[in-house]
Amino acid sequence: MSRTPPFLADPADTREEIMGAVYRALCTHGYANLTIQLIADEFAKSKSLLYHHYDGKDDLLLDFLEFMLERFEERIPFPEGEDVAAHLDTFVDRMLVTPMPEDYREFSQAMVELRAQAAHDDEYRDYFTRSDRLFRRQIARILRAGIDRGAVRDVDPDRTAATIHALIIGAMTQRVTTDDETTADVRAELDRYLRECVYRDAE
Amino acid sequence: MSRTPPFLADPADTREEIMGAVYRALCTHGYANLTIQLIADEFAKSKSLLYHHYDGKDDLLLDFLEFMLERFEERIPFPEGEDVAAHLDTFVDRMLVTPMPEDYREFSQAMVELRAQAAHDDEYRDYFTRSDRLFRRQIARILRAGIDRGAVRDVDPDRTAATIHALIIGAMTQRVTTDDETTADVRAELDRYLRECVYRDAE
Repeated sequence: MSRTPPFLADPADTREEIMGAVYRALCTHGYANLTIQLIADEFAKSKSLLYHHYDGKDDLLLDFLEFMLERFEERIPFPEGEDVAAHLDTFVDRMLVTPMPEDYREFSQAMVELRAQAAHDDEYRDYFTRSDRLFRRQIARILRAGIDRGAVRDVDPDRTAATIHALIIGAMTQRVTTDDETTADVRAELDRYLRECVYRDAE
Repeated sequence: MSRTPPFLADPADTREEIMGAVYRALCTHGYANLTIQLIADEFAKSKSLLYHHYDGKDDLLLDFLEFMLERFEERIPFPEGEDVAAHLDTFVDRMLVTPMPEDYREFSQAMVELRAQAAHDDEYRDYFTRSDRLFRRQIARILRAGIDRGAVRDVDPDRTAATIHALIIGAMTQRVTTDDETTADVRAELDRYLRECVYRDAE
């Protein structure tokens, strides 16, 4: 059973109520089996509202993805005075949390399915291009702050960020598409890489 | 237009002819739009043969995935006397080839779609568990050979292999689901990690 994430627990308006319904339906049914009716079943208000505002399940899902990205952008904390390594750790830990909570597993499974749509659908592709870019830029921003403060070596921030993000995407994808759980191993080796190749004071 | 990969160019038997048809149909149409009829359209022999041997498109695709994994197992070269770093480089380069040939892009897109099925389908999940395990073990085997020969530091081979493989899966997934191409960046940073954190003689 999927819980509602904190930022959707107390919907401020109808859109947030709709987004909560999409989240719950997506986690419960996955992408392939999802219908606009199943989303409507999770929506307390008039179902015609959904059919009126959205052309179909993909239209609704794409709006949901935008909503999630906006929330992520709002919550992007800038490391002012904060320890850069601790900040990056928190960022990575949030995405590679171990052990994986069941509702996060369901959501991650759905995200892997949604990303797969991008292989042949331009709208999903456009979304994941912008989303990946935002995450990469945030990691690069943390690294740049670290370089400025002398906490991070003179690495290429964009290249390093692309690598950390690809590693996170790979680990997240594998942990919800296989029975093996190697995330803790990946997390430990990422730590070693950061200490030995990225952070300055770890020498 | 998809070309047929070398190992399917000269089919030795009916199964290989079928596998070639699956490969071409999968690359051309992707997973979601694929039907057993579209596979049959790529098959020169009697189409009833396909319907007779397979229960449906997923049955056929799962057999295709097994076939691909068997070919990979056959082609796994063991680094006897070969330079470990050069061997690992070749392994990674084959998967993260830049620029990406069009037929490899189509195949990778299809693989991302097939992996997404594993989020909710036990048979696909079982396949990707075995497949990922095989790739990880092969990377770990190369690393162990390197440790034995003194070319690789005293790293944890399984942990390092899980990380390299997750990075490859992440980069492959991102390059076919977004418009940004960061593979060359990831490849360059992976090189730096290998030189500074994994290989011994790079100090």
